Amino acid sequence: MGFQETFKALSDKTRREILEKLKGGRMTAGDIASNFNMTAATVSHHLAVLRDSGLISDEKVGKNIYYELDLSVVDEILGWIAGLGGDRNEKQ
Amino acid sequence: MGFQETFKALSDKTRREILEKLKGGRMTAGDIASNFNMTAATVSHHLAVLRDSGLISDEKVGKNIYYELDLSVVDEILGWIAGLGGDRNEKQ
Repeated sequence: MGFQETFKALSDKTRREILEKLKGGRMTAGDIASNFNMTAATVSHHLAVLRDSGLISDEKVGKNIYYELDLSVVDEILGWIAGLGGDRNEKQ
Repeated sequence: MGFQETFKALSDKTRREILEKLKGGRMTAGDIASNFNMTAATVSHHLAVLRDSGLISDEKVGKNIYYELDLSVVDEILGWIAGLGGDRNEKQ
């Protein structure tokens, strides 16, 4: 896992929208599917890509699997991107 | 152009390294190639992807073309990613 998988995961609009939904808290695949008018298979694919990239994690609670943002990975890429602007922003 | 192209551009390690080099200021394709032990054609390809994604811009100065970071696009994706963590970070 690395930035490569993370940025590839982020390059898809639907996956970015899923991440935005998860800002509100953990959701099941069913909750997410009902927000997007997608089939369960499509949602499942996107969630797998997001999980493999480290951007989300899953947790089994009773009979349900909940997905939530992994803010440690969000923070890592945030730090890298912020670093790009750092030197110049200081000069302005 | 949109986030899709930007994140795809960022998913490549060499392109991320080129962006890091450009933090120090504008460079020609030749400057960049000499830093990476890559052929001119490879450098040219990566620079085209980065330019099409909006992450860098080019400017002709005399006989040279200089490439530099476009911080407006860097700021846009920074803002979007920072937004993912916003709500929860406030609760911690």
